[in-house]
Amino acid sequence: MSLTLVIGNKTYSSWSLRAALAMELAGAEYREELIALDRADTRARILQHSPTGKVPLLLSEDGAIWDSLAIAEYLAECFPAAQLWPQARAARALARSACAEMHSGFVALRSHLPMDLKRSQALAAIPADAEADIQRICVLWAECRQRFGQDGPYLFGQPSLADAFFAPVAARLRSYQVALPAAAAAYVETIYQWPAFQRWYQAAQEEQLA
Amino acid sequence: MSLTLVIGNKTYSSWSLRAALAMELAGAEYREELIALDRADTRARILQHSPTGKVPLLLSEDGAIWDSLAIAEYLAECFPAAQLWPQARAARALARSACAEMHSGFVALRSHLPMDLKRSQALAAIPADAEADIQRICVLWAECRQRFGQDGPYLFGQPSLADAFFAPVAARLRSYQVALPAAAAAYVETIYQWPAFQRWYQAAQEEQLA
Repeated sequence: MSLTLVIGNKTYSSWSLRAALAMELAGAEYREELIALDRADTRARILQHSPTGKVPLLLSEDGAIWDSLAIAEYLAECFPAAQLWPQARAARALARSACAEMHSGFVALRSHLPMDLKRSQALAAIPADAEADIQRICVLWAECRQRFGQDGPYLFGQPSLADAFFAPVAARLRSYQVALPAAAAAYVETIYQWPAFQRWYQAAQEEQLA
Repeated sequence: MSLTLVIGNKTYSSWSLRAALAMELAGAEYREELIALDRADTRARILQHSPTGKVPLLLSEDGAIWDSLAIAEYLAECFPAAQLWPQARAARALARSACAEMHSGFVALRSHLPMDLKRSQALAAIPADAEADIQRICVLWAECRQRFGQDGPYLFGQPSLADAFFAPVAARLRSYQVALPAAAAAYVETIYQWPAFQRWYQAAQEEQLA
């Protein structure tokens, strides 16, 4: 199976990070095509591949697949042995609920604390709506960990697509130095110890930006 | 399997409509609990069931499942014979791409043309960003229909979750009397002839609002 993942800058593109972590979970061999964001030809370059004008995009023998969540489900189907979703149906239902909530929500967090993997500095103040998002995320993480996180430090014990979807949130919480309850802080540390995340993070540190 | 679907008003709640159409596609027996939106106790009533404070929510033996997309995937797993997703992998990948794009996008369309199934009146003018969303949707529908819509009038021929996700868009386009290319207009008509949609639409017409 020939796969090409089209992504944006590693420093900034949180949705690209989700898709790349999903590829790592799948153990998929793939070619990476990085399109620098915020350049004059960015949109034209993306539109060469992507009907939506957005990244990430997965080019496969089944055509172009866009949007991180559709890419995740595609990989879960193509690489069943890798168990990208938790295996128990109830755990999988919760994992998908959490990913879908992330996919369409947490707008305040995403707009006020955009991912910047080179940053290590707090905001002067966290806006109230972003603070509410953070509190909700801590509750959601605790639910996943308490119900299904017994056999490891990830949201569902072993690494899964749920961690791929929340890794950029963990990165925001650390790079904006947000004070967290102990359980949430421990989960952020779990993400920073995840080899798949570390590879992307290291590449982001070395990335030359315009 | 005991299922309860918690929804908002049928006139307004486009995400509830998506989940209800997914239930109809599955052929699932379920109890419906409708929580009137915009009442003093709305949020308290939703929070009794839903950790996000939003509808729809599916109460199942596997716990609460929230967000229309997670509900859709859960039903696709629980009712495989109903073939909620297209059966060919490439078609399914495109269907999921389309649903994920709907799930996180088309913000201008959703905010400027909110679903109102009792409405039949054009806007004075369609804002440019909403117009861009509509044009993108027409392109997306055409791609689904042309690549995989040979054996019927729905996006992938036979009714699927993709139609459940775009039915509220079809309803907006009709109720706001948006001029459309012939192929898109034909698809809107397909949705209005879909018995599952018609049942919800009729209930919306009879719904008493605060």
